[in-house]
Amino acid sequence: MIPRYARPEAVAIWSPETKYKIWFEIEAHAADAMADLGVIPKESAKAIWAGGKDAIWNPDRIDEIERVTKHDVIAFLTHVAEVVGPEARFLHQGMTSSDVLDTTLSVQMARVTDLLIEDVDLLLAALKKRAFEHKFTPTVGRSHGIHAEPTTFGLKLAGHYAEFQRAKERLAMAKFEIATCAISGAVGTFANVDPRVEEYVAEKMGLTVEPVSTQVIPRDRHAAWFSALAVVASSIERLAVEIRHLQRTEVLEAEEAFDPGQKGSSAMPHKRNPILTENLTGLARLVRSAVVPALENVALWHERDISHSSVERGIAPDASIHLDFALRRLAGVVERLVIYPENMLKNLDRLGGLVHSQRVMLALTQKDSSREEAYAAVQGNAMKVWRGEGKFIDFLKADPFVSTHLTDAELDALFNNDYHFKHVDTIFRRVFGEQSA
Amino acid sequence: MIPRYARPEAVAIWSPETKYKIWFEIEAHAADAMADLGVIPKESAKAIWAGGKDAIWNPDRIDEIERVTKHDVIAFLTHVAEVVGPEARFLHQGMTSSDVLDTTLSVQMARVTDLLIEDVDLLLAALKKRAFEHKFTPTVGRSHGIHAEPTTFGLKLAGHYAEFQRAKERLAMAKFEIATCAISGAVGTFANVDPRVEEYVAEKMGLTVEPVSTQVIPRDRHAAWFSALAVVASSIERLAVEIRHLQRTEVLEAEEAFDPGQKGSSAMPHKRNPILTENLTGLARLVRSAVVPALENVALWHERDISHSSVERGIAPDASIHLDFALRRLAGVVERLVIYPENMLKNLDRLGGLVHSQRVMLALTQKDSSREEAYAAVQGNAMKVWRGEGKFIDFLKADPFVSTHLTDAELDALFNNDYHFKHVDTIFRRVFGEQSA
Amino acid sequence: MIPRYARPEAVAIWSPETKYKIWFEIEAHAADAMADLGVIPKESAKAIWAGGKDAIWNPDRIDEIERVTKHDVIAFLTHVAEVVGPEARFLHQGMTSSDVLDTTLSVQMARVTDLLIEDVDLLLAALKKRAFEHKFTPTVGRSHGIHAEPTTFGLKLAGHYAEFQRAKERLAMAKFEIATCAISGAVGTFANVDPRVEEYVAEKMGLTVEPVSTQVIPRDRHAAWFSALAVVASSIERLAVEIRHLQRTEVLEAEEAFDPGQKGSSAMPHKRNPILTENLTGLARLVRSAVVPALENVALWHERDISHSSVERGIAPDASIHLDFALRRLAGVVERLVIYPENMLKNLDRLGGLVHSQRVMLALTQKDSSREEAYAAVQGNAMKVWRGEGKFIDFLKADPFVSTHLTDAELDALFNNDYHFKHVDTIFRRVFGEQSA
Amino acid sequence: MIPRYARPEAVAIWSPETKYKIWFEIEAHAADAMADLGVIPKESAKAIWAGGKDAIWNPDRIDEIERVTKHDVIAFLTHVAEVVGPEARFLHQGMTSSDVLDTTLSVQMARVTDLLIEDVDLLLAALKKRAFEHKFTPTVGRSHGIHAEPTTFGLKLAGHYAEFQRAKERLAMAKFEIATCAISGAVGTFANVDPRVEEYVAEKMGLTVEPVSTQVIPRDRHAAWFSALAVVASSIERLAVEIRHLQRTEVLEAEEAFDPGQKGSSAMPHKRNPILTENLTGLARLVRSAVVPALENVALWHERDISHSSVERGIAPDASIHLDFALRRLAGVVERLVIYPENMLKNLDRLGGLVHSQRVMLALTQKDSSREEAYAAVQGNAMKVWRGEGKFIDFLKADPFVSTHLTDAELDALFNNDYHFKHVDTIFRRVFGEQSA
Repeated sequence: MIPRYARPEAVAIWSPETKYKIWFEIEAHAADAMADLGVIPKESAKAIWAGGKDAIWNPDRIDEIERVTKHDVIAFLTHVAEVVGPEARFLHQGMTSSDVLDTTLSVQMARVTDLLIEDVDLLLAALKKRAFEHKFTPTVGRSHGIHAEPTTFGLKLAGHYAEFQRAKERLAMAKFEIATCAISGAVGTFANVDPRVEEYVAEKMGLTVEPVSTQVIPRDRHAAWFSALAVVASSIERLAVEIRHLQRTEVLEAEEAFDPGQKGSSAMPHKRNPILTENLTGLARLVRSAVVPALENVALWHERDISHSSVERGIAPDASIHLDFALRRLAGVVERLVIYPENMLKNLDRLGGLVHSQRVMLALTQKDSSREEAYAAVQGNAMKVWRGEGKFIDFLKADPFVSTHLTDAELDALFNNDYHFKHVDTIFRRVFGEQSA
Repeated sequence: MIPRYARPEAVAIWSPETKYKIWFEIEAHAADAMADLGVIPKESAKAIWAGGKDAIWNPDRIDEIERVTKHDVIAFLTHVAEVVGPEARFLHQGMTSSDVLDTTLSVQMARVTDLLIEDVDLLLAALKKRAFEHKFTPTVGRSHGIHAEPTTFGLKLAGHYAEFQRAKERLAMAKFEIATCAISGAVGTFANVDPRVEEYVAEKMGLTVEPVSTQVIPRDRHAAWFSALAVVASSIERLAVEIRHLQRTEVLEAEEAFDPGQKGSSAMPHKRNPILTENLTGLARLVRSAVVPALENVALWHERDISHSSVERGIAPDASIHLDFALRRLAGVVERLVIYPENMLKNLDRLGGLVHSQRVMLALTQKDSSREEAYAAVQGNAMKVWRGEGKFIDFLKADPFVSTHLTDAELDALFNNDYHFKHVDTIFRRVFGEQSA
Repeated sequence: MIPRYARPEAVAIWSPETKYKIWFEIEAHAADAMADLGVIPKESAKAIWAGGKDAIWNPDRIDEIERVTKHDVIAFLTHVAEVVGPEARFLHQGMTSSDVLDTTLSVQMARVTDLLIEDVDLLLAALKKRAFEHKFTPTVGRSHGIHAEPTTFGLKLAGHYAEFQRAKERLAMAKFEIATCAISGAVGTFANVDPRVEEYVAEKMGLTVEPVSTQVIPRDRHAAWFSALAVVASSIERLAVEIRHLQRTEVLEAEEAFDPGQKGSSAMPHKRNPILTENLTGLARLVRSAVVPALENVALWHERDISHSSVERGIAPDASIHLDFALRRLAGVVERLVIYPENMLKNLDRLGGLVHSQRVMLALTQKDSSREEAYAAVQGNAMKVWRGEGKFIDFLKADPFVSTHLTDAELDALFNNDYHFKHVDTIFRRVFGEQSA
Repeated sequence: MIPRYARPEAVAIWSPETKYKIWFEIEAHAADAMADLGVIPKESAKAIWAGGKDAIWNPDRIDEIERVTKHDVIAFLTHVAEVVGPEARFLHQGMTSSDVLDTTLSVQMARVTDLLIEDVDLLLAALKKRAFEHKFTPTVGRSHGIHAEPTTFGLKLAGHYAEFQRAKERLAMAKFEIATCAISGAVGTFANVDPRVEEYVAEKMGLTVEPVSTQVIPRDRHAAWFSALAVVASSIERLAVEIRHLQRTEVLEAEEAFDPGQKGSSAMPHKRNPILTENLTGLARLVRSAVVPALENVALWHERDISHSSVERGIAPDASIHLDFALRRLAGVVERLVIYPENMLKNLDRLGGLVHSQRVMLALTQKDSSREEAYAAVQGNAMKVWRGEGKFIDFLKADPFVSTHLTDAELDALFNNDYHFKHVDTIFRRVFGEQSA
């Protein structure tokens, strides 16, 4: 995990302190359930909560014990006994370490997903605001990096809004997938722990019951979760790359906000670089890199092997913390994005109306030109424009074939951006719902 | 795509013939909608259907035309005109190639997902059947590859059943994500095509409407689809690896069916190898390899670039065709798996009851031994068994500490597999529902 | 493998016919060596060559036999006996299938690497030619997509030339890694085949001896080979992305050649898209996707499992065939690239000399301005240019702080592209050697 | 980076303190070179070294400054001026931040590669020692997880030794690739810095000169480096998986050393798990996960974009630190591996000599049986053994077809492990050289 790309809220979820707190809660809730079932004394369960509820578990002490036991949960339980006293011996009855570890991981992954969903909400709000601001700001639509036809900047943002709506749904589904609880003992048979303990703890920890576990919660759930994060990261990359393109010197239709005091380059004082979105492009790669190891973690041997553990120690905090940071950063970039409608217009007109070539062609076909003839005529004139020989409208008016079908006035009428915006309302309604009307 | 790992049903979905058939249907449905809107003559739309409905589009001819136009959809439309006649000029009005290409890809991906769901159903049926057959067949549960505690073979299979239930849900969700239709023109503004055309074609082709497209359907949808396939592939790998482990010479608890006439090795006539599940392990790697390029495809430039196209020509058929094959193969392996309950029992007893160590420890703690003392006593005796010095039960009975707490009869009673199976019914109900009772 | 991105020369290396021809050669060379060692009759070895040297092995027939034996090498040997006669029984003595399969794969991988190296040579030639043509063609250097300082187009190409020189070395190293021969029997002990057979076959097939094999050639070699291909693919992507950027409508400093008759878009007749380099970007993703499964193939179980086999059936031909195609396509793109020096100059001047900001700052520091003051002064004037308020040189001349340090004439002298090109010769000598002087 | 899988030696290379020390050295060496060239005063260069040579650069102070400048190198230079005094203004003349950052990264990557090579040497030493110890320890060779033929445990280890020899060569090559120095200014033209400065600094820092850079050192070098690390990680995984297999309860031919006081499971006192090699399997996945983002980093835009930076902040320390840890851990595991020759022998004999099936078949063919007949006869008897019906040798002796060709004594002579070990010396010489004779 790279500290400079981490927010404290996300880091806290993965801290040792949080982890041990969740461990205690799982163990103590399980003790309550066992006490209800008569497996351990009720007063012991109570004493455990009394002694441990407000305790701060000491990671250094636990590490110290682990250096002897070489087993983390045993080390923790030993430390709990130091704090809570002898009643702690009733903890963990018939449970296995993974019952605690895996359920804890589920809690952490679920909580951090909640954070990610909040982040997406912020981003969605920023996108929506800017989309409505620029609902009818004309700009050129580009395919292959080449001017295609007019669109609006609001429409561009609406597309990203819709994509992050899907991101939100994917995260919600990912949370649903991962938020399960397993307290089923050494190989998942509940041999020494009643299934009702699992049900009780699940409910208390805000999880569902894992229908069948081995020693662990099956890792297809985790792989699905990391995959969801990776797709969200790729959506971030798409918007980041868009902004980087828009800020290119030759394009300059939008720009990341540049703070007073900021220096773009130690060597070149004139520089204003899209460093935030470049950074987001890199963070997307980092978040995505968790997918392959997560997929490789699925095929554990038999009732479990522990190869997934070191992997998850890395990728679970890293991917989620960096994605949280990236979503917030992107929300800020969108919120503060400096947009240049006049440059958009200048770029749109750069090729003397070439972006209207389709309309001219369609107009010709409606005047009984064949599609092939119309295409050839329009293309021929367009190529002259690419060669820098003059303006598109002038060539068309001078073209004998074109002018037999279309008058100058008809041609002029075709060179009209608004023609392209007549369905913007429809699309906004589809994306943002009726309130956008 | 590797022919030997491909079923004709899946291959057919990705054939040029199928592709061109879908292209025609989309264009022709769009023509119907345009005719309804008065954009093109109704009789032209009819003539198009009449001439093209039963046509077989000729891939070679289309390739030939494309060598001139260097554009596939234009080549196709030219060929349609050859077959259908001049009314074909009304096709594709105001549409752009991607309207056809992307919607076709959605149709193909949706259809092949239906196939994958069927495959999973077959696999689920096989798993369920074998799980019930062996609901109470005792076998050792292993963690870290080391004997842990008794479980049943049916429980193992129930775990895989639950995982493939999730696989089915993931595929259903992936289909839902991908099954959208975009007919929105060059940059998604519907400048020259009415949104109602898109709605009409979507309905006819069994798709939903893409709320906002650029020139293309956004690639986060495709990335999510490939991710879902990759997770399913990893679940296949988990079951395949399990079977490979069970067939190891030293374990031999189950075996792939071995046909008369089959040869396991050209050199060693005695060999019977788990080649099908080894193959499935490899196919899982292949299917998964589509995820990274699919994620890299998301961040297309502006309203689209075409870098995704060559990638999808490869990974879309390959990943889905091989996954279809793999699921079928796995269903067959499970269906025909030769299971050796007697070897399971032999392995379970191999260490003279060592798998009951937890129960002994818990019994000691219930007799007021501390957890630490109990652990130490049981571990000490267990280590002698690992060293091959004798039987676990004998050591325990001879141990002064143990015997002060537990009588021989009490100890004997702890060495009991059935104790571990008391919740199998509960788990089966969770996994298979009430009919399992 | 996607036929449209495949050259026949590369496809041929991976054809069944080539594979069976290599199989035969390995078996027949081994027979020669065994005959020399007295293991089999010399006349039998001769008869095998006589009967099989010019034979065309029939893949369909072999497939037919394999459907019974479920073993490919046994099926092949059976077919050889059909063609060569009973002497064929002396083939494969003490060998195991993998001896043939793995050595064949080495031969194919080595041969296709030779092809790739030829491709890189073509690309290098094209890059060198264009680099010298444009050795002193001024163009703007960009960092972060933002104008930085002047460079030359030849320098840009020299950078890519140097990168593909490294690509060539990587491919040579990758070939060296993979070109080994293993004929060591069932588990690599040479129990039934003399090590001298391996040595003989290795020499005849142009390979080195694998010092120690299990049943197979270790897969770290293959993983290293696929990794090398992936790095080369990424270098292709870098150059492809550069060209795509240069062809952007707003930049238009270079363009892929556009053929007469070519259509850029079915809908927009004006389009000229960088489709070849976009395609190369996609192909790079495809080639790279082989790396992860190749790495996953390394950890085979014990003396081998066969999970790698299905993976390699896909990725070995696919990655190499597509990379061969991509390198050739890129060589053609570079060879025919249309370059617009006048547009480069126009872009370079677009910001009124802003690209000279560093020189102004350094000149100020040489006149005893502190670096901080100089930076602030230059940045302040540069920001006005970004805001479109006027020309950089005018602002500087009007700035009281600047003008106390630098006269107008001194300032004018700083706005000079040639200043930046004084070391181009040095760099060219480093990259292309002395002949560039 | 996960602290528990990190050694201080590796962590130190990536610490802020080390980074700033290298930054200073690069800047100060450059100042020396500039002083020699008369660009800056000689006494200033001296003063810089005098003031900075033994300085401890304060990361917190630099961070503090960066919060204002939003630029790390400017922040550093400001801090150097605070420590060294006004002569610091002569630093960084005509250089750009990347000159410092990228050259520093090269130094760090080169240094950590040296560490990795040391680690591999330790591992090689352990492997060699254990290989010679068990040069003739018989064990079963397995393909597909199924018993194949006898081999020796030393041969197994020799194979891994050879693989790590290749690992060492790959690391040496990777270091060679990455150890370059670029001090070429804003876009690589040396506009404001003489190429001789680069040459001087390169030599002082133990690097070669980058022949042509843009603003940065090209990222194909870094991608090749990460790829090399990934292949090494996969070789670790292969050996780790081998040991995990050998420790399986049913196999138990080798075992990780188990310390007194160690607890294998909190629930099951009898457990001894191969946790170190399982952990290594996971670490291999982590190290490998750096490859894809490293490949994605290659195609930077134009003369550079900064998307690679955040990626490398993560993967460069993480991959190298974890690989260093993993290699050391593996060396320790091999060094202390508990090997059970008697269990190897027991497993080898488990199937009553089935592992000799090939020899019997070959002996039959040498007695004029056809290969097909011999195969069928041997396979038929072998299948009875798999079914648990008796011993292989007994079935063969009782088989009418076999016994007409081979006497009981001849058969008995074929059931001989030593036959398989006659070339072990040859292989050891190939792998370890002549000293092994």
